[in-house]
Amino acid sequence: MKVAVVGLGSMGAGMAVSLLRAGLSVIGYDVSPERRAQFALAGGAVADSVADAASNADVVVSVVLNAAQTESVLFGGSDANLSDAGVARVMAPDGVFVSCATVPPRFATDMAARLEATGRHYIDAPMSGGAGRAAEGKLTVMASGSAAAFERAGPALNAVAETVYRLGDQAGVGSAFKLVNQLLAGVHIAAASEAIALAARLGLDLPKVYEVISQSAGSSWMFQNRIPHVLAGDYAPLSAVEIFTKDLGIVGDVARGEQFPTPMASAALQLFIMTAAAGMARDDDSSVARLFAQIAGIDLPQKSDA
Amino acid sequence: MKVAVVGLGSMGAGMAVSLLRAGLSVIGYDVSPERRAQFALAGGAVADSVADAASNADVVVSVVLNAAQTESVLFGGSDANLSDAGVARVMAPDGVFVSCATVPPRFATDMAARLEATGRHYIDAPMSGGAGRAAEGKLTVMASGSAAAFERAGPALNAVAETVYRLGDQAGVGSAFKLVNQLLAGVHIAAASEAIALAARLGLDLPKVYEVISQSAGSSWMFQNRIPHVLAGDYAPLSAVEIFTKDLGIVGDVARGEQFPTPMASAALQLFIMTAAAGMARDDDSSVARLFAQIAGIDLPQKSDA
Repeated sequence: MKVAVVGLGSMGAGMAVSLLRAGLSVIGYDVSPERRAQFALAGGAVADSVADAASNADVVVSVVLNAAQTESVLFGGSDANLSDAGVARVMAPDGVFVSCATVPPRFATDMAARLEATGRHYIDAPMSGGAGRAAEGKLTVMASGSAAAFERAGPALNAVAETVYRLGDQAGVGSAFKLVNQLLAGVHIAAASEAIALAARLGLDLPKVYEVISQSAGSSWMFQNRIPHVLAGDYAPLSAVEIFTKDLGIVGDVARGEQFPTPMASAALQLFIMTAAAGMARDDDSSVARLFAQIAGIDLPQKSDA
Repeated sequence: MKVAVVGLGSMGAGMAVSLLRAGLSVIGYDVSPERRAQFALAGGAVADSVADAASNADVVVSVVLNAAQTESVLFGGSDANLSDAGVARVMAPDGVFVSCATVPPRFATDMAARLEATGRHYIDAPMSGGAGRAAEGKLTVMASGSAAAFERAGPALNAVAETVYRLGDQAGVGSAFKLVNQLLAGVHIAAASEAIALAARLGLDLPKVYEVISQSAGSSWMFQNRIPHVLAGDYAPLSAVEIFTKDLGIVGDVARGEQFPTPMASAALQLFIMTAAAGMARDDDSSVARLFAQIAGIDLPQKSDA
């Protein structure tokens, strides 16, 4: 079984290594020569183009940034870096395309219909878990697609994920679940940032705030996961602010399209946009706390240079 | 050791019973004769006035609604139901007043200073955990006050709480921690409501959404705790909407007083106000999900009458 991984960023590289570890034949591609070289160093085969990587692949795992890149990978497109793409033409005739980017549900439905018209299969498979869990093969996958697609892609999904939720027979359902998850995740990061900065303004002992709130009704997965970055003053990106300007943008677009109000997600989106606008787009998403600190003139912990 | 409990609502009644269970001498008071009768039925002694209950008490546990009631209990006041109060005059000369309402930190500081001027002690002790945990003696207490106060009130605090966080020597610190907790708790309830209602709009299987999100990065304590109410269609109040219009109101007031912006808490507060305005002030706080459903014309699960 030949697996192609398109996109070797922090998520894709970890997933590609997890696939290798599972004993699958893996060929990777990224627009960045440096990333290709890193994957080769990790023992992977690399291709010079998306089409070469995907040629006759039984499974193509697409770990690109967004919907536009996903479409380009599948069908070619105007993106110069992916102009030679169009894996739908070159992958195995009964191959499975596993789409991992966070995209609007309707986009996933459309892509699946176009690909399935060629006889190939599509799994709508957005991931949750971050780069660390990607490298460990312990992601959570919120997936939907046909039984045949899951059967064929099973070994690849199991290699990258600790949990594969099969959420429906149709593409779009996985992306809808991911969208609900990202709404909450984004709101919780923004709220955690607002809360820890307010705690600083009130003169509280911040490590104590972290300890107490983590054990209280105000806790969230994101509070527990991101506030340690603030306490350490370390905003090196594990997940960047611009991921949430993108994902909460999708939430807002989809909800508006459904004529459904999302005031919480909208407030959070504005905070991520403000944080990006203040120059922190590529820093860790916990930088929203730094935005509050800048605005209000308070001191948050500084990174100690060991 | 004589302990008086002022306020026998859902929290106070459970705490009074937990104090009894610990073998302490407990006398309870509530403005409601029904609640007094219920506590008597549970084996407690009851008084006909706050002053009678608190007379010579070593510890007075005040479990009233808000700052105004707390001040009336301590020093008497204009509230007709508490006009005979003023436990500061009648409790034991070295007694401890344990204040459990969620109040602004500065209010707690002021009350403590006035009470301590009489030689008595004050513990700023807002609680977290809900009626169920109150009845089990398993609350979380975010407390601050002098070492002498904690030493004296220790048996009472331990009887009602699973965890007593000692957060500082001065009143106000406990309330500041509680305020940070309530900011997050309120935002998380509002976000959980928005998310589950959007999931319904997107046609997702809601129990599956609950299962998947509870195990994902979008989870929060409140999502896990409140969404089952929505899935059951049961909005009988375990914690009412009006608690959060009050508590997020305090968050907003305190933050504005500090010239500190709280856009997330403000968005959540508006949703709780809308939910209250729509007639659900005394229903369970997960009713914010019903507000979204009403606005957007979607169906959430209905309570099945067994």
